[in-house]
Amino acid sequence: MNLRLTSDEVIELKEGESLYTALKKAGIFLVASCGGKGTCGKCKVKILEGDHAARSYGKLTSQERGSGLVLACQTVPEGDLLVEIPKESRLVVGDKIAIAGTKDLARYLKSFGVDINPVIKRISLNLPPPTISDNISDLERLKRLLDEKGLRTMRYSHGFMSRVSETLRSANWDVELTYIEGNGTSDEAIRLSSAEFCNRRYGVAIDIGTTTVVVYLADMVTGGIIDIGSTYNSQMRYGDDVITRIVHATEGGGLQDLRDAVVTDINTIINSLMERHRIERCELIIATVAGNTTMSHIFWGLDPGSIREEPYIPTLNYFPQWKGGTARLTIDQQAPVYTFPCIASYVGGDIVAGVLASKMHRNPEIALFMDIGTNGEIAVGNNEWLMTAACSAGPCFEGSGIRCGMRATSGAIEAVKIDPLTFEPSVTVVGGGHPIGICGSGMIDAISEMFLTGVINQKGKFVAGTTDRIRRGEEGMEFLFHHDEKLHRDIVLTEADIENILRAKAAVYAGITTLLGEVGFTLDAVEKIYIAGGFGNYINVERAIMLGMLPDVPKEKFVFMGNTSITGAYLCLLSEELRKEAEDIASKMTYLELSVSRNFMDEYMSALFLPHTDMGQFPTVAALLKNKV
Amino acid sequence: MNLRLTSDEVIELKEGESLYTALKKAGIFLVASCGGKGTCGKCKVKILEGDHAARSYGKLTSQERGSGLVLACQTVPEGDLLVEIPKESRLVVGDKIAIAGTKDLARYLKSFGVDINPVIKRISLNLPPPTISDNISDLERLKRLLDEKGLRTMRYSHGFMSRVSETLRSANWDVELTYIEGNGTSDEAIRLSSAEFCNRRYGVAIDIGTTTVVVYLADMVTGGIIDIGSTYNSQMRYGDDVITRIVHATEGGGLQDLRDAVVTDINTIINSLMERHRIERCELIIATVAGNTTMSHIFWGLDPGSIREEPYIPTLNYFPQWKGGTARLTIDQQAPVYTFPCIASYVGGDIVAGVLASKMHRNPEIALFMDIGTNGEIAVGNNEWLMTAACSAGPCFEGSGIRCGMRATSGAIEAVKIDPLTFEPSVTVVGGGHPIGICGSGMIDAISEMFLTGVINQKGKFVAGTTDRIRRGEEGMEFLFHHDEKLHRDIVLTEADIENILRAKAAVYAGITTLLGEVGFTLDAVEKIYIAGGFGNYINVERAIMLGMLPDVPKEKFVFMGNTSITGAYLCLLSEELRKEAEDIASKMTYLELSVSRNFMDEYMSALFLPHTDMGQFPTVAALLKNKV
Repeated sequence: MNLRLTSDEVIELKEGESLYTALKKAGIFLVASCGGKGTCGKCKVKILEGDHAARSYGKLTSQERGSGLVLACQTVPEGDLLVEIPKESRLVVGDKIAIAGTKDLARYLKSFGVDINPVIKRISLNLPPPTISDNISDLERLKRLLDEKGLRTMRYSHGFMSRVSETLRSANWDVELTYIEGNGTSDEAIRLSSAEFCNRRYGVAIDIGTTTVVVYLADMVTGGIIDIGSTYNSQMRYGDDVITRIVHATEGGGLQDLRDAVVTDINTIINSLMERHRIERCELIIATVAGNTTMSHIFWGLDPGSIREEPYIPTLNYFPQWKGGTARLTIDQQAPVYTFPCIASYVGGDIVAGVLASKMHRNPEIALFMDIGTNGEIAVGNNEWLMTAACSAGPCFEGSGIRCGMRATSGAIEAVKIDPLTFEPSVTVVGGGHPIGICGSGMIDAISEMFLTGVINQKGKFVAGTTDRIRRGEEGMEFLFHHDEKLHRDIVLTEADIENILRAKAAVYAGITTLLGEVGFTLDAVEKIYIAGGFGNYINVERAIMLGMLPDVPKEKFVFMGNTSITGAYLCLLSEELRKEAEDIASKMTYLELSVSRNFMDEYMSALFLPHTDMGQFPTVAALLKNKV
Repeated sequence: MNLRLTSDEVIELKEGESLYTALKKAGIFLVASCGGKGTCGKCKVKILEGDHAARSYGKLTSQERGSGLVLACQTVPEGDLLVEIPKESRLVVGDKIAIAGTKDLARYLKSFGVDINPVIKRISLNLPPPTISDNISDLERLKRLLDEKGLRTMRYSHGFMSRVSETLRSANWDVELTYIEGNGTSDEAIRLSSAEFCNRRYGVAIDIGTTTVVVYLADMVTGGIIDIGSTYNSQMRYGDDVITRIVHATEGGGLQDLRDAVVTDINTIINSLMERHRIERCELIIATVAGNTTMSHIFWGLDPGSIREEPYIPTLNYFPQWKGGTARLTIDQQAPVYTFPCIASYVGGDIVAGVLASKMHRNPEIALFMDIGTNGEIAVGNNEWLMTAACSAGPCFEGSGIRCGMRATSGAIEAVKIDPLTFEPSVTVVGGGHPIGICGSGMIDAISEMFLTGVINQKGKFVAGTTDRIRRGEEGMEFLFHHDEKLHRDIVLTEADIENILRAKAAVYAGITTLLGEVGFTLDAVEKIYIAGGFGNYINVERAIMLGMLPDVPKEKFVFMGNTSITGAYLCLLSEELRKEAEDIASKMTYLELSVSRNFMDEYMSALFLPHTDMGQFPTVAALLKNKV
């Protein structure tokens, strides 16, 4: 069975496999925040021709069903199909950021003043073939030559040895040895290959987010990025945030499910990258992995149970360099897999990677690093000291738990203006066209605009009678931003949405002030604020300040970094020196546990207002409101 | 279904499983040199009651069949059975040797002047439980305490880490860490356990012979041997000698079959030892393996192909210390497995283990070491130099290829006298009772007696008309040693048997003289001759000299060592110092390739007579023959 797309791509279908899975295998990812369970209703595709069976239609309206729309995850082909994928259903995770950034990444690497120097080395070995008078074993022959070349402490795994005899003979004793440089400890042999086969060197940098998984494929010789791939983290089907995942892993006995889900996601990307660029598995000789502490544990199949229970203890923060085979990745089984060190249960390797990418650990000026993704982590410090904390902001800025929420991809409302007289909103949509939802930056815009125009009060509650765009919806009061006549689809923000967003922003802001207070600083001391995370590129700083999420400091202090986790993973893929720097960052960083901090609770309660109960902390907002009045 | 033995043991039977396999699983091993293929006809058992189906009766006579005898490997139960195992069918490999020896082995270990010091160490760790103010990760907590105890360079495998979190908490932070001492390189963590569970330490020493597999279970604290187990090497079904096995591995693509066969044999023994002594798998924390080069390669699943082809190159001689899991042994998956270093394609780790056990490498006197098993390997030297060679003697002294041949177990004719007047033979049988075959020492006795009494000439051919015990049998001329009226079973040696034995003894003797000649010595220089291998304990030295297999030197120079391969494996199980000594022996030992030596061919041709063409080398035999005449 074949699936033909209106874009002319043709995909093979398997009996009983959903369209969602078939498309995913072909490298075409659909929006599906539920991970393909049929509940989020976002993986809509339109069947133009062909027989199919739908297990359910989920949230699809009867009109949508009438027009041929189905949920890809709930639909199984029963013959050849012709399918159209609506733009809004196609997932391009962080496309703008990643693709814009990757071209410059090799240059960015150079700006660190380090050379391309992965631990993985290669050496050509021209061995004298054995004779009856020189009949030492294959390994001893190899060692003899390596000794001459000064490589005296190589370790040889069983996996390595099992191919040696055949490779030496088929390559006519003219081989390439790939090995991990031990630097002080033993080197380790990875693979012996002929000059003709498996002779290129690629690596994969992996960012395991709670919501998304991103993979960069890099050329280990030039440092250039060949391609990128990304997908939702299929663990989503077990819950949106790390806590529900840990619960599933421990109480549900589902650690292996979770591990399988994310490893399969990564392998699906890697396999499609390999196919697209005709790369052999044995040519993927190294991987780096950055993820939060829970994601890092689950990736390695380690029980994350104690992360969730006071006193919140991970099994390990510094991960030994285990192997591709152990990680179950579809890369060389002997390839080293570097995992970013974590700081504590709720500040993980993604933050270490981010701080590394920001260079704040190298400079004397005090900087603040913020990563607002599924959770919110912050770090503050300079080249002498570093502190960090996690504030449970929740995944609302990524669209989760928000009625019309979505990620900052095509079709998302990313900016909002509200006319102060008519209260008519005008919206900007990612990629242009009709809006299909609202992303984090759009939410921030929308709330600050509603606040400025008096649609909501300082507590985030609708001011009754302001405009008839405020209406009672299925889930309580809501504000209508967009009405789509054709699709019968309204885009709204509900009072519950606003409450969610206020709680998230309060957690972030209170985290910042608590952390700074702990070291005796105020925001005045901060010279740079690095904003990591997908939505950073779309954010309007002034509006985020007005919301009370970002501190009210001059705009030029803000630096938007995009996905710093994958950037850090890329940097460490290519440079062992930077890996050492990452370890150094992790060991220097002091962790503050906010959940037991009385100061944090006070700061959080004060920050639950727009922008804050203490208006003195938001002078420009105060001035603006004063002018309005 | 149950199988009850007349000895009152009861064994569970599985549908479709042969009696041979069921008995093997229960730790009752039957003689079966074909490995259970139904061709050797040696695994006879008598079914007294119960239904069963026989696939074939192989070589059983109609009388045997009539008496209820079946081949266990060809018989499948169809209900409860009552079975009698005839003494001659029960395999007790090297019982006399092993059991006599093991009591003294701990003392023998002490005679080396080394302490019990396996690389495996254990340390008690009483960790402070984590608190919110001391919230480092489990691994960092472990490392902090190990640092205090001076253990600073521990490596942590993924397998180790995957159990850490649970163990620490279930053991209430009071744990035992088992680790491999790195001695210069990093230590390596093996297992964390509570004081209650998995808290004993055992090890297994494994001797992988081409024909048999022997396992010693040792207490790693006291050094005492708890028990032993042994079985035929099931690889026998793929051929008697290493060459046919290599052919099967390479041409037949059967490397995995061979690996599975021997690993299953070892695991069957280990499992029955564990059950018998109520030992947990996690308490088996180390293993040592001694075997010839081919056996060592196959055990690790490494292609032995190039061992067979000129210039005879093994993949490796020095085996890294890989893991129990990698070896697929049913011991702790992280347990180190030490493999004895090999010297060359046909002188393996069993010989290094043997030389170590003999201590010849420590003494200034020149000694000769001979291991006559399936093959014949010899070593000569002292504390300053060592030389070694392999002479393809073949497995005839173990009973293979000899019409009535068998191993030196119960029922084997181990000694023979022939009356010089009547030519009536009188035989001594291992364990007393009726003879069922003839073992290596019996063959040597028989041939030298036949030679002395003029039944055969110097070329090993029967002298026609000497006695009517010489008769024409199915396979040519033969001499009748024993006639069993009741069982209608004759024990004979055929002319072809004698030829086989002469070729084997000639290869051994020529090996010795060639090796000594190479270093410019004659036999006079040799102060001690260590005889390794099962048949050594039964051998009559004078007769072996008369045969021309052992050199004609004073009897007191001979030392019979039994299975030195398992002794060496045991020694190295308990002492790291001795492991280093074994490595040292291997690196000092010079290998001489006899197959390309013109001297060897000359020596071999001269040695094909009884005892030798050059009678000057056998003065006592010459004197004896002169007296007879």
